[in-house]
Amino acid sequence: ALVAALAGTPPKGPLSGKRILITAGPTREAIDPVRYMSNHSSGKMGYALAQQAVRAGAQVTLVSGPVSLPTPGGVHRIDVISAADMHEAVMQHAKNNDVFIACAAVADYRAADQQPQKIKKNQQELTLTFVKNPDILADVAKMQQGPFTVGFAAETQDVAHYAKDKLQRKGLDMIAANDVSDSRIGFNADQNALHVFWSGGDQLLPVASKLEVASALLTLIQQRMSACQ
Amino acid sequence: ALVAALAGTPPKGPLSGKRILITAGPTREAIDPVRYMSNHSSGKMGYALAQQAVRAGAQVTLVSGPVSLPTPGGVHRIDVISAADMHEAVMQHAKNNDVFIACAAVADYRAADQQPQKIKKNQQELTLTFVKNPDILADVAKMQQGPFTVGFAAETQDVAHYAKDKLQRKGLDMIAANDVSDSRIGFNADQNALHVFWSGGDQLLPVASKLEVASALLTLIQQRMSACQ
Repeated sequence: ALVAALAGTPPKGPLSGKRILITAGPTREAIDPVRYMSNHSSGKMGYALAQQAVRAGAQVTLVSGPVSLPTPGGVHRIDVISAADMHEAVMQHAKNNDVFIACAAVADYRAADQQPQKIKKNQQELTLTFVKNPDILADVAKMQQGPFTVGFAAETQDVAHYAKDKLQRKGLDMIAANDVSDSRIGFNADQNALHVFWSGGDQLLPVASKLEVASALLTLIQQRMSACQ
Repeated sequence: ALVAALAGTPPKGPLSGKRILITAGPTREAIDPVRYMSNHSSGKMGYALAQQAVRAGAQVTLVSGPVSLPTPGGVHRIDVISAADMHEAVMQHAKNNDVFIACAAVADYRAADQQPQKIKKNQQELTLTFVKNPDILADVAKMQQGPFTVGFAAETQDVAHYAKDKLQRKGLDMIAANDVSDSRIGFNADQNALHVFWSGGDQLLPVASKLEVASALLTLIQQRMSACQ
């Protein structure tokens, strides 16, 4: 074991030899040089998944929106700002990975017209039009021989209903739903709880630290991948 | 000096006995429970001002939007999220302060209708209407016997023109302009450069660390206050 560690051999573990691509954090969609639209996301859950996947022996690539978190040891981190940037980085790496976990809170919309100069606040009202961003998760899910694809669903109501619909509609292998209206497990919390669904089954991962929930989710992913092989 | 330090007496310095209120960071304006509009701002300049004002002997209250910075020693920090929250905190404290430095990148607009549930992404386009936020800086500047009021102007073009216009229009005592299109001194940089204007004068504070620029600006403020007494 000492020789392996010295030689830089990846640690043996349940995910040994697996390559895992994870997205984390929010994206920011520029409106003008000073304003942007974003989603609440601390990045903690995605970073916890990256950290635990490395501990379990995986090779981990983390595509991260703007967050204030240190990169977990052993993780290859790629920084992006917008959903378009994240889409590009993910599509480039997805085909070389065994698992894709889309944990980022990607902005669904971007400004239709990004202004090159700061919009002056002369008007009492400001009306802005936003257009749909590319759907990173759906695009990976429909790849030929793509990775085992896991989505997240952050909802404030009818959580199970929306999650199961998203699983089927996007053709995912698994979806992890959380109720962000619960402040114990909300956006900047250190704890989380997930209700995980796949075709023909589901499992509750009860409230625990994000690191513990990350480990439990990785174990589920590994079990489903083995079952499907 | 040792006895004074042990007794908790404020340090002697050029701002000894002065009470300074500073805003820092961005504000976030909720669109729904997961989406928000915000402005680029790391909070570094406001936090540098707070730190240097304490070193110069002032009593400092820092009203801070969401940032990832530690509170400088000796600073009384009040955390806020939205412009409305920041307005309330500032108006409550402004009358008890000698100086107000508005360094925060306050969102000029908020969503006209904040949605209680997450907006579903069914539509190809999303049109949102925003309405004007209260003008914290102008409201402090027009207070009877209010503090010496210093604004910031982050601009991407015609910086001096906009800054002088803002100084006069809002009735400020001083304004510090910076060109955020210059990436050396932009939003997340550790350096800054300011062009400071007051009625009948101006001074350039050349590129330096934000701590050095903060000290230079505090010295200018102190000089102007003395000159106006």
